[in-house]
Amino acid sequence: MSDKKKRLGVVLFGLGRAGQFHLNNLARHPRAQLLYVVDIDKARVEEIAATFKVIGLTSGEEALADARVDAVIVATPTPSHYQVIMSAIAAGKAIFTEKPVGYTLQEIDEVFRQASRRGLPILCGFNRRFDRSWIKCSEAVQSGAIGSPQIIRSTARDSPVPTTAYLQTSHGFFHDSGVHDIDVVRWMLQEDPIEVYATTHCYLPHIKELGDVDTIIMLLKFKSGCMGTIDLSRKSVYGYDQRVEVFGEKGMVQVENKPTTSCVISNAEGVIHDKVMYSFPQRFEEAYYLEFDHFISYVVDSVPPRVTHTDCRNAFIIAEAAMKSAATGVPVTIDYSIN
Amino acid sequence: MSDKKKRLGVVLFGLGRAGQFHLNNLARHPRAQLLYVVDIDKARVEEIAATFKVIGLTSGEEALADARVDAVIVATPTPSHYQVIMSAIAAGKAIFTEKPVGYTLQEIDEVFRQASRRGLPILCGFNRRFDRSWIKCSEAVQSGAIGSPQIIRSTARDSPVPTTAYLQTSHGFFHDSGVHDIDVVRWMLQEDPIEVYATTHCYLPHIKELGDVDTIIMLLKFKSGCMGTIDLSRKSVYGYDQRVEVFGEKGMVQVENKPTTSCVISNAEGVIHDKVMYSFPQRFEEAYYLEFDHFISYVVDSVPPRVTHTDCRNAFIIAEAAMKSAATGVPVTIDYSIN
Amino acid sequence: MSDKKKRLGVVLFGLGRAGQFHLNNLARHPRAQLLYVVDIDKARVEEIAATFKVIGLTSGEEALADARVDAVIVATPTPSHYQVIMSAIAAGKAIFTEKPVGYTLQEIDEVFRQASRRGLPILCGFNRRFDRSWIKCSEAVQSGAIGSPQIIRSTARDSPVPTTAYLQTSHGFFHDSGVHDIDVVRWMLQEDPIEVYATTHCYLPHIKELGDVDTIIMLLKFKSGCMGTIDLSRKSVYGYDQRVEVFGEKGMVQVENKPTTSCVISNAEGVIHDKVMYSFPQRFEEAYYLEFDHFISYVVDSVPPRVTHTDCRNAFIIAEAAMKSAATGVPVTIDYSIN
Amino acid sequence: MSDKKKRLGVVLFGLGRAGQFHLNNLARHPRAQLLYVVDIDKARVEEIAATFKVIGLTSGEEALADARVDAVIVATPTPSHYQVIMSAIAAGKAIFTEKPVGYTLQEIDEVFRQASRRGLPILCGFNRRFDRSWIKCSEAVQSGAIGSPQIIRSTARDSPVPTTAYLQTSHGFFHDSGVHDIDVVRWMLQEDPIEVYATTHCYLPHIKELGDVDTIIMLLKFKSGCMGTIDLSRKSVYGYDQRVEVFGEKGMVQVENKPTTSCVISNAEGVIHDKVMYSFPQRFEEAYYLEFDHFISYVVDSVPPRVTHTDCRNAFIIAEAAMKSAATGVPVTIDYSIN
Repeated sequence: MSDKKKRLGVVLFGLGRAGQFHLNNLARHPRAQLLYVVDIDKARVEEIAATFKVIGLTSGEEALADARVDAVIVATPTPSHYQVIMSAIAAGKAIFTEKPVGYTLQEIDEVFRQASRRGLPILCGFNRRFDRSWIKCSEAVQSGAIGSPQIIRSTARDSPVPTTAYLQTSHGFFHDSGVHDIDVVRWMLQEDPIEVYATTHCYLPHIKELGDVDTIIMLLKFKSGCMGTIDLSRKSVYGYDQRVEVFGEKGMVQVENKPTTSCVISNAEGVIHDKVMYSFPQRFEEAYYLEFDHFISYVVDSVPPRVTHTDCRNAFIIAEAAMKSAATGVPVTIDYSIN
Repeated sequence: MSDKKKRLGVVLFGLGRAGQFHLNNLARHPRAQLLYVVDIDKARVEEIAATFKVIGLTSGEEALADARVDAVIVATPTPSHYQVIMSAIAAGKAIFTEKPVGYTLQEIDEVFRQASRRGLPILCGFNRRFDRSWIKCSEAVQSGAIGSPQIIRSTARDSPVPTTAYLQTSHGFFHDSGVHDIDVVRWMLQEDPIEVYATTHCYLPHIKELGDVDTIIMLLKFKSGCMGTIDLSRKSVYGYDQRVEVFGEKGMVQVENKPTTSCVISNAEGVIHDKVMYSFPQRFEEAYYLEFDHFISYVVDSVPPRVTHTDCRNAFIIAEAAMKSAATGVPVTIDYSIN
Repeated sequence: MSDKKKRLGVVLFGLGRAGQFHLNNLARHPRAQLLYVVDIDKARVEEIAATFKVIGLTSGEEALADARVDAVIVATPTPSHYQVIMSAIAAGKAIFTEKPVGYTLQEIDEVFRQASRRGLPILCGFNRRFDRSWIKCSEAVQSGAIGSPQIIRSTARDSPVPTTAYLQTSHGFFHDSGVHDIDVVRWMLQEDPIEVYATTHCYLPHIKELGDVDTIIMLLKFKSGCMGTIDLSRKSVYGYDQRVEVFGEKGMVQVENKPTTSCVISNAEGVIHDKVMYSFPQRFEEAYYLEFDHFISYVVDSVPPRVTHTDCRNAFIIAEAAMKSAATGVPVTIDYSIN
Repeated sequence: MSDKKKRLGVVLFGLGRAGQFHLNNLARHPRAQLLYVVDIDKARVEEIAATFKVIGLTSGEEALADARVDAVIVATPTPSHYQVIMSAIAAGKAIFTEKPVGYTLQEIDEVFRQASRRGLPILCGFNRRFDRSWIKCSEAVQSGAIGSPQIIRSTARDSPVPTTAYLQTSHGFFHDSGVHDIDVVRWMLQEDPIEVYATTHCYLPHIKELGDVDTIIMLLKFKSGCMGTIDLSRKSVYGYDQRVEVFGEKGMVQVENKPTTSCVISNAEGVIHDKVMYSFPQRFEEAYYLEFDHFISYVVDSVPPRVTHTDCRNAFIIAEAAMKSAATGVPVTIDYSIN
């Protein structure tokens, strides 16, 4: 339905932190028309519905039944993603969902299988794929600017420390955060790792209590000979530290952190640049808009999606293999044929 | 009317480049309610009115007569500012206007005099005052972090080169661009210069044809002993170069440029950071939101305005003195008592 | 013999690349007096002897027999280090040697045992320990500025690619280059790793032919919970890439690369900083002087040596364990009690 | 006498701060042979003579009479330069002198006239012309990389604050420091300014007492249309701040400051780079070697000198014009025909 004037009718599920980004983007995107917002928090729904002049609901049925609704944005808490997505598929809507699509490989496969069967577009929001810095980095690698990649390093250190409430439904550090870096590595190299070795540690009591970890290092091996590391922490006091570095035979490309401002103070102590951006809403603000914009192009203009079933599935499989390695203390060969 | 729940009813005059920023900010600001958009371009008005679900007009009378309208945003072409502002004052509306308030000192004084007489808030958008980098720089200076300021340098080099159409109503390089740097210097130092010496040159034929210049250097002297330079160009091929540096007895503070992305490539040629942000919509995107947010605080919560009559008036007087210096080839003593 | 006026009588063995640094430092150090230079290349010896007004020899006996000689500097090719050192010990001289002290753990232990028995100072040149950037980094970690270390990363990528001639006597990539990073990690953390996992690859034919590798990643685990990675390459086209990063609960400290010059060009392509310093003579020029200066303080003023028997021994043991891991494909527990 | 094996016989006048650089460079330069050191401080002379195995003198006659001496290095206090240079010329020696050649235009002209008449090489040490960063900057400008230059800015801020003892014979801030920046501007642009406007201030009591100033801004105009500023301070607490920036129609090239180390600390305060290099011995260490190396090429290989009579003369004339402008408060047209 490649109609440049078409404005996509949208229902937004979830008015929390992620929902807020989407609201702002929906409000200003010339090709989207927000029709409904859905959240179990009645007061919140009413406030947002008034501000954005849309219909507010505490349950999604009515919205999904509305033929003017072309697409569903899933920004609810993680555990409900699968269910919301499946009901949207049943209603024949296009889907843009925050990661993850599901909690198991079976759920992930089922979601994409059903969407495919119905011919429905579905996009999972691996936000780094829509950030200009990561895109430029990826383009540099794919263009051959650094020759064949030999070493890759991805770093993700959280700011602020997630709360127990968040962590309880986060699906664990490997799946909650590690998959982003795993996805970045796969995307940059256009190759899947064949083996992973992972070690972990936990410093923070509230995370240990949940049986989760707060520090991970993974070492990945690729058939091409390329090798990579991923290092993750749940607590970076100097800001949201998100970097990637690809080293190749002809050069190196890096995504560096961004300072909060470009103000710099020089004194007898040193040359003090502003602190690193605080958290993901700051760092990925534009990426969220571009992500949504890509979703519209995917749905309306049939542009191929930048995140596919294979991307979601393989990132999941690698994260599982890494967890197994961390549990057993030995490297794990990755089997992509499992179901 | 300090009511935190109050949503300011707004009419936007002008749907051009500046108008577009304000539209996006109005759409997502929780304390604003866009009611009307006004522009002489009928098609544009209709398109925007539909997207934002507001009333579109090609003339402002109806909007100004509407009691639900609390404030007017003036984003029309420069020559019409004075007239639109004066009609908004006549209608008893608060005013947020793009620079300049008027083309003459008399117009500037008249606008503020009338607004003051009617008790109407009026804010002129000197955007650097609302940019986090400049704010942090100013706070560093005012906090004494660099001791008493001794040397200040402000740089503004345009990207892209303005068109003849824009330049024709720009009021000349000193008033169109120089006043921003003059304002920054006054703001940083909290002191007015007593003398200015300026030299100019013109390289670009389409600017020369208009009798304007494309390159300016000013040297400013202050009673405190501080001295400053401002250097301006209409054509920076490497991006929108906007910097300031304040040197004092205890250190230095600088606002540096921002790269388009944080992607960096290292090869045998060097370490290549991404190019400087292209133009003001990129560089000042957040500043425009914060500027509008401040306007709401000013109008609704009675927060003192960050840009005052004196700021507008003195920047104008200094720009005029600089033009006189450039014309005569000698330093000009600045007289702030003129009318 | 803490005599501030004492000038150390020195004989320099080896007039190759490393020898040249030491010549320059010996010539300008106020507390050293170069007396002899020794090299098998007669012409080279004569040229240097004339320039520096010292005695040139093609064999060391005469110099070692001279009572005015207090110390020996060993800058000969790697395979001869052990033999030259042992003869210097036999002659009762203090020793400053380029890495390594020997090719086996037995040789290393023997050298330090004999030197200790005779009360002779011996210093092994792990150059990063004398570089101001690494020192500042280490001081930051030890001072608690970043809290307890949780993740450490050390990077070493060679420029230019070593020649076959060099590689033949280099003792392999793990021992030739890896020990520097292993030493840095031990030094920063003040802790020895308990386990290492390593993977390798070889891209360059002339290195593969020698049975060596050109790319290594190691993952190190520490009892404290800290984890670290080391990544190494023999071919960095963008310059000599030597960095370290220590991440802790209270912050991060990094040693970054240094540009060849501080000249920066901005154009439509980007902001182009000068390329990374070419190789170790540029990067560690000052470190070599400070290393030698420390040696004099050690010998003359009895300042404790910054590199000890344990440092040499444990770095060797870790490198061996890493090689075993790379060969077997599994993590290796490190046993420091072996002989 | 283009003889690549020729080693230049050298006498060094002056063993103070500048003398020390030259000693280190003389000691390691393969084409120089230090024969004599001369200083009025007998103890210092004897110490240095012993260290470097040369003849020490408290008066220069004997050295100048020695036929093995090819060249004289003048590193004595400023007021004696002219006299030492003239006696070296009388003795037929090549001359490498620290700035300035003389205290008046007449002295400068006389020195070059006499050297030229005798066919003697003479080089004045404008050190920035031998620094790799400034050289790369100049090459970028001359190669057309930034197109025709339109704005140039040179900054020099001293660290540490000079002592009264130094200042008393410094010849004043314009001549002592300003000429370096004036020379840089002339060199970069390959053009002499036609007019200068300068303003000054004095904050430091011990400088005011001497009738000198500690802060200067100059604004220079060129026939090509290019304009430039120079800003100078005697007291930069954050290190020796020496920068230059050239802006042109096709880009910008800058020489930035250099940090003391490449160690960077990130914490909740910001990203703290090491402080700017402390003073000129650190910043220009390599430049002093390259300067001396160029002198040898000039004398032995007849390479054209990088600093000429015109360079010394015109920098002096511009500094004088700037002083006149500061004294009169108006721009001064520069007359290069004066004697």
